[in-house]
Amino acid sequence: MIDKLVEKIKKTEAPIVVGLDPMLKYVPEHLKKKAYDEYGETLKGAAEAIWLFNKEIIDNICDLIPAVKPQIAMYEQFGIEGLVVFKRTVDYCKEKGLVVIGDIKRGDIGSTSEAYAIGHIGKVQVGSKLYSGFDEDFITVNPYFGSDGVTPFIKVCKEENKGIFLLVKTSNPSSGEIQDRVIEGRPLYEHVGEMVAKWGEDCMGSSYSNVGAVVGATYPEQGKILRKLMPKTFILVPGYGAQGGKGADLVHFFNEDGLGAIVNSSRGIIAAYQQEQYAKFGAEHFAEASREAVLAMKEDIAGALGK
Amino acid sequence: MIDKLVEKIKKTEAPIVVGLDPMLKYVPEHLKKKAYDEYGETLKGAAEAIWLFNKEIIDNICDLIPAVKPQIAMYEQFGIEGLVVFKRTVDYCKEKGLVVIGDIKRGDIGSTSEAYAIGHIGKVQVGSKLYSGFDEDFITVNPYFGSDGVTPFIKVCKEENKGIFLLVKTSNPSSGEIQDRVIEGRPLYEHVGEMVAKWGEDCMGSSYSNVGAVVGATYPEQGKILRKLMPKTFILVPGYGAQGGKGADLVHFFNEDGLGAIVNSSRGIIAAYQQEQYAKFGAEHFAEASREAVLAMKEDIAGALGK
Repeated sequence: MIDKLVEKIKKTEAPIVVGLDPMLKYVPEHLKKKAYDEYGETLKGAAEAIWLFNKEIIDNICDLIPAVKPQIAMYEQFGIEGLVVFKRTVDYCKEKGLVVIGDIKRGDIGSTSEAYAIGHIGKVQVGSKLYSGFDEDFITVNPYFGSDGVTPFIKVCKEENKGIFLLVKTSNPSSGEIQDRVIEGRPLYEHVGEMVAKWGEDCMGSSYSNVGAVVGATYPEQGKILRKLMPKTFILVPGYGAQGGKGADLVHFFNEDGLGAIVNSSRGIIAAYQQEQYAKFGAEHFAEASREAVLAMKEDIAGALGK
Repeated sequence: MIDKLVEKIKKTEAPIVVGLDPMLKYVPEHLKKKAYDEYGETLKGAAEAIWLFNKEIIDNICDLIPAVKPQIAMYEQFGIEGLVVFKRTVDYCKEKGLVVIGDIKRGDIGSTSEAYAIGHIGKVQVGSKLYSGFDEDFITVNPYFGSDGVTPFIKVCKEENKGIFLLVKTSNPSSGEIQDRVIEGRPLYEHVGEMVAKWGEDCMGSSYSNVGAVVGATYPEQGKILRKLMPKTFILVPGYGAQGGKGADLVHFFNEDGLGAIVNSSRGIIAAYQQEQYAKFGAEHFAEASREAVLAMKEDIAGALGK
């Protein structure tokens, strides 16, 4: 699966993933009205509003980017109805040829991690039949349990040609409280980075591993160190845009081949029409604003990479 | 919510939580047949089989125990249909008067943790209405992101009188790879334990905090230390039974008031009929075997606690 992602990044010339993390406050009033008129102010109505929002954005940007990253929490908050729309979004993005990174941050003891892996990137057996529950291409995984919580995901990656991104250094302000604690002279995230590189050796694509890492754009110095510690590890970089990460911060997340990282922006793209810069589009044309924001992000990153 | 849990533990004289972590291999053939006859060998059929299994167990043990802990991964592996049965299980257990600990191990950056908190223990706003997505009483939370990933859960606990259990030292064999790493002379789990105690001060019930901790029964020595570091923290103790933890190992997880911990058993209870000890019940009477296993666990723990 990492080979497919790399190929699509090359083809689109965009090491960019758009975070489909919809909140109702991002959804224009006319879409909410349409959904509530049909289903009322219900969980189903909210989920429908989000689906209409996602679909129009996807239709307007799918030719520009290699991948999307729906954040399952934003759907899970609406219960079952929200998760139905998460699944519909995953399926629709795949139909459109996009690689789908399910941002689910699961992780547990071995038998439980196996169930998550089966549900999101594998197949579950029911009698004589096999089914995919959610069927993302990649998922994000929390490494706090250590290797027996991680290897069930890697096993399924190998069986199904899928991939994972393990949390190494997250983009949030307090990530250092645990992840930066110093162990044998080096911060925890470096140790975790080495574990990720090692786990990844067992699941290689042609140049990069199907076992990737999450390192926040908000920590460029740490990114530089981790890039060197994990040369074959693809890095998923959240925190660009709304969280404060800038194009110039991203250079060191990439390898000299211009690859090795994919940068996520969520709010900055999907709610672009709510920013002053794109206000001219208006709420009716919100998805065109998203398209403009993708083009601007592409240019910002290409500039930073000297392309 | 911690006060309700403590009260129910006192009433049932059982500091026990039963893990509703169904796998199809635990479900007796006659229930699978019934479900597949109705819905085919489909995700819906599998989910129905699990529902029939859960319901019969709940009906047979609900008077003996204070709480259940459904592990969402075991439902999520069947996609949407599985999650529908997770929700149905949560609702049914609450109807039966049980405290429900959703074992979901979520955790993310602030805005995303907020969405998980809203979806599982809070309410989401849709227009002028408020809805609960899953509505557990407690949930388990992964602390790897640090305080800004945790405090959104605590905020919702306070608003809704709910609770959380944060992972401190997990029961799996490789938990030490990250959690035992030594920082300033002490293992990471002790530092996390101190963070949990501190977070908990802000969300107290009458004797214990609504912010609890997860510490595996498989690590009794660590449990002893953590018990002292977190005197007002209720400890959820997985790993008893099938994972190897014994009654005698559990003593130090409790305070001198005989409270402060609740011990989970999953397979050992729900799949009791598959063990030699309870084979006499047969698959038809699987739920009676579960009842016997709960009574035996209750006795084992009471004996260990000198009651």
